[in-house]
Amino acid sequence: MWNTILTRSLGIRYPIIQAPMAGGPSTPQLVAAVSNAGGLGSLGCGYLTPDGIRDEIRSTRKLTDKPFAVALFTPGKSDPPSPSIIQEASRLLDPYRKELGLPLSPPSPTKFGEALEEQLQVILEEKPPVFAFTFGVPPEGFLRECRKRGIWTMGTATNAAEVRLMRDSPDPVDFVFAQGCEAGGHRGAHASSIANDTFTALLPLVPQLVKENVPIIAAGGIMDGSQIVAALDLGACGVSMGTAFLLCPESGTSAPYRAALRNEAASAEPVGTAYTRVISGRLARGIRNRFMREMEQFEGRTPGYPYQYYVTQPLRKACVSAGRSDFISMWAGQGVSRIRELPATDLLARLVTEAEQNRMVRPG
Amino acid sequence: MWNTILTRSLGIRYPIIQAPMAGGPSTPQLVAAVSNAGGLGSLGCGYLTPDGIRDEIRSTRKLTDKPFAVALFTPGKSDPPSPSIIQEASRLLDPYRKELGLPLSPPSPTKFGEALEEQLQVILEEKPPVFAFTFGVPPEGFLRECRKRGIWTMGTATNAAEVRLMRDSPDPVDFVFAQGCEAGGHRGAHASSIANDTFTALLPLVPQLVKENVPIIAAGGIMDGSQIVAALDLGACGVSMGTAFLLCPESGTSAPYRAALRNEAASAEPVGTAYTRVISGRLARGIRNRFMREMEQFEGRTPGYPYQYYVTQPLRKACVSAGRSDFISMWAGQGVSRIRELPATDLLARLVTEAEQNRMVRPG
Repeated sequence: MWNTILTRSLGIRYPIIQAPMAGGPSTPQLVAAVSNAGGLGSLGCGYLTPDGIRDEIRSTRKLTDKPFAVALFTPGKSDPPSPSIIQEASRLLDPYRKELGLPLSPPSPTKFGEALEEQLQVILEEKPPVFAFTFGVPPEGFLRECRKRGIWTMGTATNAAEVRLMRDSPDPVDFVFAQGCEAGGHRGAHASSIANDTFTALLPLVPQLVKENVPIIAAGGIMDGSQIVAALDLGACGVSMGTAFLLCPESGTSAPYRAALRNEAASAEPVGTAYTRVISGRLARGIRNRFMREMEQFEGRTPGYPYQYYVTQPLRKACVSAGRSDFISMWAGQGVSRIRELPATDLLARLVTEAEQNRMVRPG
Repeated sequence: MWNTILTRSLGIRYPIIQAPMAGGPSTPQLVAAVSNAGGLGSLGCGYLTPDGIRDEIRSTRKLTDKPFAVALFTPGKSDPPSPSIIQEASRLLDPYRKELGLPLSPPSPTKFGEALEEQLQVILEEKPPVFAFTFGVPPEGFLRECRKRGIWTMGTATNAAEVRLMRDSPDPVDFVFAQGCEAGGHRGAHASSIANDTFTALLPLVPQLVKENVPIIAAGGIMDGSQIVAALDLGACGVSMGTAFLLCPESGTSAPYRAALRNEAASAEPVGTAYTRVISGRLARGIRNRFMREMEQFEGRTPGYPYQYYVTQPLRKACVSAGRSDFISMWAGQGVSRIRELPATDLLARLVTEAEQNRMVRPG
């Protein structure tokens, strides 16, 4: 069961990937703990400066000599929204700024994210064992440069057209994450030829994508060993799990985010997750909070990613400082109510035991 | 693998249920073929008169002496919409009536569905081996009457609260369908205490519901043996498959519906499925067609189930007669692109072989 194209290619023990969780949760400590325990840890570096990415990679290397992944966002170029749209989006936040004691109507941000070219350059220089990407495909030629340096590549797809895009390119990708609609965090859908995002769930999605003859890693809602076995049954060569690791002590999950996760696990009527665009400008799934509920009505009026992300960022920082969860992002998948609070090493060992037991006890 | 609480209780060979597909597809021929092949066929009788239900049950009994299920809709009482809302809903259809050569603005329907009490009475009289229900729970005492008569009962849930409702009632249900958001046809969500329908997919849903200690049958997006094995891995005691049987020659699927299904299977860019309320007034998943696309904007203005269903019914009838798929309902789940056109007996045999092979070849 543990011998798949993923474990053989990377030389890892278990086909269990700790998903990149940009914006805090995936620390070098978490990544190293997962990789040392036989899985594959992933650094979510999408929001970091080139120097920040370099530091994270080097910090991780000090903690493990096992393979790990570095993940970036690779959307295509988009024109920035007009200053008036950014201002209008910012004005909508004034009531919340007031509540948090922040200055009203501050000047619009002048920088919206890091330059992808510079981020990618760090990957080629630092040569992490695996490069993972989402929101699109890297610029032409980049995956070829990765291959030359022995860096494995993993892209993200939500439908068969996106798999074909990555498979039939001059720079084909090595592995594809099949991201089901149950997955927490940002949705990786990107093929513009797909008129409607069809939000396919993992159980039907994995067999659809496996048919395209690319090694598929299942991502979305997976929290225990029985689900890992199920994903492998469907033809996946591995799984990616994010939410499951959010309460590990090694994760950089903030205190109010942790409190909300614990509440999902303990409550008979958990709040549950939903998709929203209002936090970052891009569709993402998280635990419903006040900001998501109250801003829903303005979804059509907020700018796209990454602009909305940078407009709302000061709110999140103030909110975390104040220990409040009202306006932060609490990305989580549909399995969140079954989250467990364990050190990463113990969690991985538990997952492996559950998967192996599940396989053994199946009635004959 | 085939020995589960479902197969042991019902005395069937394989824990594979052909889902009830009311409105045509699930004929006595299909149901009997599935049951004779070792699965459990289901008659979808929600739209039938009491006499119609009796006839279907008796026809099925002539074709099989194996267990089968009879399924009804058991929504709570709802006040009918005002005549003006029905009229307005009807007026929206005039352009389509014109196109189909139907009389414009006909009188509003005077009857909206069959009386549930009379439908239920037939169940108690005819005593099919299994009674299945969705959209809610039957009136108090009814499941007790089923139990007295040796009729197994199966309800439908989309979240843990709905499972608890059926488990903790004075008339607990024997089995619960876990209906994932990938499922075709009408969504069974009903617990009004759940403010938001969370649209949980099967892979996270089944373990959540299994935790509630009720035997769970997985429903949604399942098309092949690998998915059956995956569902059992997740803790389900069986699976329910609807879409997979729609192209069987024994199914009552209409010609234009069949053509659309074949197109989903053959096309590199299938149309795909979506949820809509505009066909029946209740959320259901089907292959996107012109009616769904064009009526989307009016979703808030159309009456609820069953009223919208009866207002739109003449369009569907005319459309099927004309061999057109523009305005019919083509319920299908997210696995539809992997549908196979085989006699029901062959399809069931294929599913069993796939499941058994999947179990055997898993790398050690």
